[in-house]
Amino acid sequence: MQKIAMLGGGFIGRFYAESLHGQRSRDRVVAIYARREETAQKFAADYGCDFWSTEMEAVIANPEVTMVCIALPNNLHEPAVMLCAKHKKNVVCTKPLGRNAEEALRMMRAVEEAGIFGGYLEDLCYTPKFLKALESVKRGALGRILWAKSRETHPGPHSDWFWDKEQAGGGCMLDLGCHCVEIARSFIGKEVKPVEVMCWAATQVKPIDAEDHAIALVKYENGAIGQFEVSWTFRGGMDLRDEVMGTEGTIWINNFLRTGFEMFTTGEGEGEDYVAEKAESNTGWLFPVGDEVNDLGYNHMFTDMFSACEAGREPVETFYDGYVVNAILDAAYRSATSKQWEPVALPVWRGQEGLSAQTTLTEYDADHYLIKKEVTHDGRHKIILKEKQSGKIIERDVS
Amino acid sequence: MQKIAMLGGGFIGRFYAESLHGQRSRDRVVAIYARREETAQKFAADYGCDFWSTEMEAVIANPEVTMVCIALPNNLHEPAVMLCAKHKKNVVCTKPLGRNAEEALRMMRAVEEAGIFGGYLEDLCYTPKFLKALESVKRGALGRILWAKSRETHPGPHSDWFWDKEQAGGGCMLDLGCHCVEIARSFIGKEVKPVEVMCWAATQVKPIDAEDHAIALVKYENGAIGQFEVSWTFRGGMDLRDEVMGTEGTIWINNFLRTGFEMFTTGEGEGEDYVAEKAESNTGWLFPVGDEVNDLGYNHMFTDMFSACEAGREPVETFYDGYVVNAILDAAYRSATSKQWEPVALPVWRGQEGLSAQTTLTEYDADHYLIKKEVTHDGRHKIILKEKQSGKIIERDVS
Amino acid sequence: MQKIAMLGGGFIGRFYAESLHGQRSRDRVVAIYARREETAQKFAADYGCDFWSTEMEAVIANPEVTMVCIALPNNLHEPAVMLCAKHKKNVVCTKPLGRNAEEALRMMRAVEEAGIFGGYLEDLCYTPKFLKALESVKRGALGRILWAKSRETHPGPHSDWFWDKEQAGGGCMLDLGCHCVEIARSFIGKEVKPVEVMCWAATQVKPIDAEDHAIALVKYENGAIGQFEVSWTFRGGMDLRDEVMGTEGTIWINNFLRTGFEMFTTGEGEGEDYVAEKAESNTGWLFPVGDEVNDLGYNHMFTDMFSACEAGREPVETFYDGYVVNAILDAAYRSATSKQWEPVALPVWRGQEGLSAQTTLTEYDADHYLIKKEVTHDGRHKIILKEKQSGKIIERDVS
Amino acid sequence: MQKIAMLGGGFIGRFYAESLHGQRSRDRVVAIYARREETAQKFAADYGCDFWSTEMEAVIANPEVTMVCIALPNNLHEPAVMLCAKHKKNVVCTKPLGRNAEEALRMMRAVEEAGIFGGYLEDLCYTPKFLKALESVKRGALGRILWAKSRETHPGPHSDWFWDKEQAGGGCMLDLGCHCVEIARSFIGKEVKPVEVMCWAATQVKPIDAEDHAIALVKYENGAIGQFEVSWTFRGGMDLRDEVMGTEGTIWINNFLRTGFEMFTTGEGEGEDYVAEKAESNTGWLFPVGDEVNDLGYNHMFTDMFSACEAGREPVETFYDGYVVNAILDAAYRSATSKQWEPVALPVWRGQEGLSAQTTLTEYDADHYLIKKEVTHDGRHKIILKEKQSGKIIERDVS
Repeated sequence: MQKIAMLGGGFIGRFYAESLHGQRSRDRVVAIYARREETAQKFAADYGCDFWSTEMEAVIANPEVTMVCIALPNNLHEPAVMLCAKHKKNVVCTKPLGRNAEEALRMMRAVEEAGIFGGYLEDLCYTPKFLKALESVKRGALGRILWAKSRETHPGPHSDWFWDKEQAGGGCMLDLGCHCVEIARSFIGKEVKPVEVMCWAATQVKPIDAEDHAIALVKYENGAIGQFEVSWTFRGGMDLRDEVMGTEGTIWINNFLRTGFEMFTTGEGEGEDYVAEKAESNTGWLFPVGDEVNDLGYNHMFTDMFSACEAGREPVETFYDGYVVNAILDAAYRSATSKQWEPVALPVWRGQEGLSAQTTLTEYDADHYLIKKEVTHDGRHKIILKEKQSGKIIERDVS
Repeated sequence: MQKIAMLGGGFIGRFYAESLHGQRSRDRVVAIYARREETAQKFAADYGCDFWSTEMEAVIANPEVTMVCIALPNNLHEPAVMLCAKHKKNVVCTKPLGRNAEEALRMMRAVEEAGIFGGYLEDLCYTPKFLKALESVKRGALGRILWAKSRETHPGPHSDWFWDKEQAGGGCMLDLGCHCVEIARSFIGKEVKPVEVMCWAATQVKPIDAEDHAIALVKYENGAIGQFEVSWTFRGGMDLRDEVMGTEGTIWINNFLRTGFEMFTTGEGEGEDYVAEKAESNTGWLFPVGDEVNDLGYNHMFTDMFSACEAGREPVETFYDGYVVNAILDAAYRSATSKQWEPVALPVWRGQEGLSAQTTLTEYDADHYLIKKEVTHDGRHKIILKEKQSGKIIERDVS
Repeated sequence: MQKIAMLGGGFIGRFYAESLHGQRSRDRVVAIYARREETAQKFAADYGCDFWSTEMEAVIANPEVTMVCIALPNNLHEPAVMLCAKHKKNVVCTKPLGRNAEEALRMMRAVEEAGIFGGYLEDLCYTPKFLKALESVKRGALGRILWAKSRETHPGPHSDWFWDKEQAGGGCMLDLGCHCVEIARSFIGKEVKPVEVMCWAATQVKPIDAEDHAIALVKYENGAIGQFEVSWTFRGGMDLRDEVMGTEGTIWINNFLRTGFEMFTTGEGEGEDYVAEKAESNTGWLFPVGDEVNDLGYNHMFTDMFSACEAGREPVETFYDGYVVNAILDAAYRSATSKQWEPVALPVWRGQEGLSAQTTLTEYDADHYLIKKEVTHDGRHKIILKEKQSGKIIERDVS
Repeated sequence: MQKIAMLGGGFIGRFYAESLHGQRSRDRVVAIYARREETAQKFAADYGCDFWSTEMEAVIANPEVTMVCIALPNNLHEPAVMLCAKHKKNVVCTKPLGRNAEEALRMMRAVEEAGIFGGYLEDLCYTPKFLKALESVKRGALGRILWAKSRETHPGPHSDWFWDKEQAGGGCMLDLGCHCVEIARSFIGKEVKPVEVMCWAATQVKPIDAEDHAIALVKYENGAIGQFEVSWTFRGGMDLRDEVMGTEGTIWINNFLRTGFEMFTTGEGEGEDYVAEKAESNTGWLFPVGDEVNDLGYNHMFTDMFSACEAGREPVETFYDGYVVNAILDAAYRSATSKQWEPVALPVWRGQEGLSAQTTLTEYDADHYLIKKEVTHDGRHKIILKEKQSGKIIERDVS
């Protein structure tokens, strides 16, 4: 059983608490820190916390607390982690880990040196669909992975600090791209080194300093490509989709807007009050989500985190992972400015080194490689071959 | 915390155990009864049960046990419930409650007289999508409910006893129809009396005595119609869909085959071993389900059951509900033979009485009812009216 | 090339004209009859007709006309056909053919006796998806057909006469059910005799005499079941879906609301004026249809009609088919009142006779029938068998 | 009426002929040129051509011919167009127009100087869904367009020459990217100048010299971004999807794999022979396309081409458009090598000049810009504002 101190009583803190207390959970949130007294009190009342305070250290140091859960603006992650290290309290931290890789690396080191548990709350790497897809990918059902794309776009976050570049550290790319980067990286293989990034980012709509729309390609050492598409300017709700292509198959995941739940309402009976996170309308055709807390990965995430902590093993998503994600995003920000592919700077790297881009040469016979086999409209079995010596490409009918 | 005795170590018993031990649950399965020693032992090993036996009463009577979970063939539900009543053990029982309403009514009475907790494990009334849809319906977002349909079809159950009419009490209609009936009844309102049933049932494919395909309409006292479509002859996986129509909207739910998770595999990498319950292929386009145990309602079901038991309240699905479902299915079986609408016999009825079919007369002005308002292709605003006195139907342009 | 006289200048007449003049068609609408002068004139101007009149016979008799296309209210179909017979003009008639089978049979006989071409404009049996599905079914890709369902529901028709039982001959069942009946009949096989019908019909919402919601089952001589669900009370647009189940597969068709075209608009730019036939909203999530005239079957329908006429062969949908459809609907109306299965009265029947319900006994070995073969979670290959002699059902592992 | 000479009797030539002779078309293919006699003869027999030859010029010069349709490998487009110019024959040419902008520009000039009609057969800019989507975009339903993406991936083309870089001029980027570029360009506005391109391209799987996978971003002068994703390594069929984002809405189009037609077949009845272009399996779940020739845009394309020619107007897709597309792809190829954004070289440009990237500053009051308005879970109406002077971002509740 974990006795959790929640740092931050806003949107995400409450979402976490719903998950932590969900179903027949044995864990409880026992303490809450919020910057505003009123927020802390309301949270404590809503979730039955014994202790609340506007002093962060008091909450972390509270002797009852066995696990600290950071749900604060990005600029407060590092100070909070440092306090956990000081008080030797296990800690899980929301995404992104840092505003940049430098911050993230300091947090990672602080946790490792203090010998405390550090979990990175990358919920979208714990959605039920993602977990099952990842199993299939690892089992080889898609063959060699060539490309993995993740898209997260919606009409913008709920709190003011997200829109402030200083507190947030960036715009939609940091806020949403951190998810997408880790999703693609997981499908491609976490042991494979990300080497360079090409990124476009712009402020197309909102009166802010940070980007509100960005697209990037991340090249991995084995030639695979990760892609992300993120935006705060999308209209229509929260679009959360992943795609993976391998030599033997493909996977398409829709985590939110099209999940087999469709509803039409004229609004003349009773309108819908709340459809789903970031939904933009409550009449006409609506696409609610069955179990947001589960479908967004919170349940499986906390189960992994706490089970790992209790078993003395690493969780699937660690502070090291958070740091790698930050390093990739740092390269993306540089590329958006330099308009070139930018290398990913990884002062610490714990995966494989020296992979090279693979190709698939399918031997047809001693003299030919196979390009393609197919059945035509009129039932012919046709093959397209490459002559090994001449490089010439030819077509043949086979029976 | 509940200490559960599982009766039955087959497919459904194991599925229940997965849910009961899932995530960070505080409940444990502590004892297992199975007819075959080997099954009981394997189950005990797999789920860490302290006690196993091939004597049902020994398992139920075990003093550690606080809750009995019946996951046995249909013909054993009643004897198992009677033992729970004898030993004053709280009990939850899989669907259908009885093979017919007579059995179900005896079980309901036994539980009520013994003063024990009785929960009806109708999981499909606890799927996240269903729960959220039901909230919308109850809030009035669809207006007055006119029709609710539930469809469950698949290529047939996994164990021999389902196919044996004596043990099962019926075919696909009892096995699957029990879900569908309760889903439609929930949308229409559990307080509304089901009055008569029209049913077609046939053995179209399988060499069995019971039906392998059935369709029925259930008429409720307020004029609403429940519909079910069930089959053991469907090819393509498990088709679980619900639809609801109201005067102000509609809801479409797909619980299984189309949930936003799509995968193609040539099978030349590594085929998929297990895609989802009752999937029929493991190459080509596949439609896995993210989190079967959650998406099929098991988690929310057991949470409601045990929370209700601990709080001393009724769960959402009671033995009384199981009995009403059996009574509706009994009428369906009679109708399949008599080829007429058959009344639902409900010796015990605890809902509303005397409702009549509603209609919606929308007043347009003193002399007319409104039939329809619309905007035509060419932008005219047109209304279709009925003259109250003459009953004549007319069209008018309005601006 | 056909020179067409259009009878009726309303919604459906205009839709037909769009199709007839679409793409690079060689056919032209040359004459128009409408009851109101203003309608006839506007139509003539819009579609470039040389001749218009409010006298039906003058239009039919016009020497330039080679083909008459009836797009009139149901009660005018018979008189219009009689005039075509009198003037020996080839004719195609919109659906339903008659208000009942008696009318339809008279029309069929008139056409046959006059030796003119008679085509039944059942467009939904010509949608591209339907045509391709039917080919697959006929080729045997679904095995033996067990059940075919067609659903057409929307918020109600556009013209006053539909809502008037006298002119229309019925409500949504006649208006929409005629499509559904012929779709299911085509999948099951037009040569298979429909024998009896069970129907529920009610006026649940609208202030009219006819039904606004109906569901029916049509039993065919070979044991297959056709099903239709029709309504004028559906909210959300026009729901056009077909499903077919066979022993070896299934087909799902969505002709309208979910065809791979999705759009969200806040309505704050410019709202959409016209989304698709019977769409109910023009902001929020919308589901337009690419090419309504083609996707609803009009193009392929007229191609078949005119090519058949020119080649001297029967079209796929004849007046005989229209009469069979009416006969099935007549039985449905009787059943809605009698609350029993009602026989289909077919004084003329040109298909097969004496079929009986088939079953599929799959021989496993000399002593057993096979019920089911499957791979379990844990990789066992399991079979469920029935002992021929005892009828006992057993399970076995195979390797 | 057009009398068409088809140049090329392969896959695409036959597909075109199906469209040209489809439905009740008044146009005919009267002559066929193919490199191999056998191909020419078979084509002539299948489509009823009066004249066939293996001499291209003889076919073009044939006096009966009013329109030449080029369906040849990419390296033969220019010579064929030059012959049309020489013989003053109207010409329509398949995509891509040239192997590069230089070729395309010469073809464009030859046609313009000869005063003949030149149409660019960009079928995917004529699919019914695209046409309807484009209307909505032009009407303003999506507000200002920010991003338009088109994806075309499949398991590779059918003929040997595609795989040969010399004949084809490139790999999947030229073959498929030409569609995607024009789709995005159309949504963004053809009058808006494409300025630079960033592209990744690689040969990940096939033993060929050209790329088999590529992704690119195209920046337009007004700040909008076009994106394409193309591959010959995709497994699962032909994936044809477009997406558009604007300030007021979004559009998602699926042209092929998910169009509301779903089929499962065990393959034990009769397998499916042909499911759809580039489908990879014929058992399990299949996704046929209703009317390929129409849904892929061929019908609307030829209607526009020939109607434009007869009316003396430009078609929607001209040789100029083909040249612009080639120019964008040229920049993409350069970028794939240089790893930088590369400028689009447009020696001829007929659209707008001097646009700048727009932003949307929504005035809230004299002192603030509006960032976001929303309703929270608990029903609060919240706004997020930016102070004009300080640039500070604040949150406020409004009632």
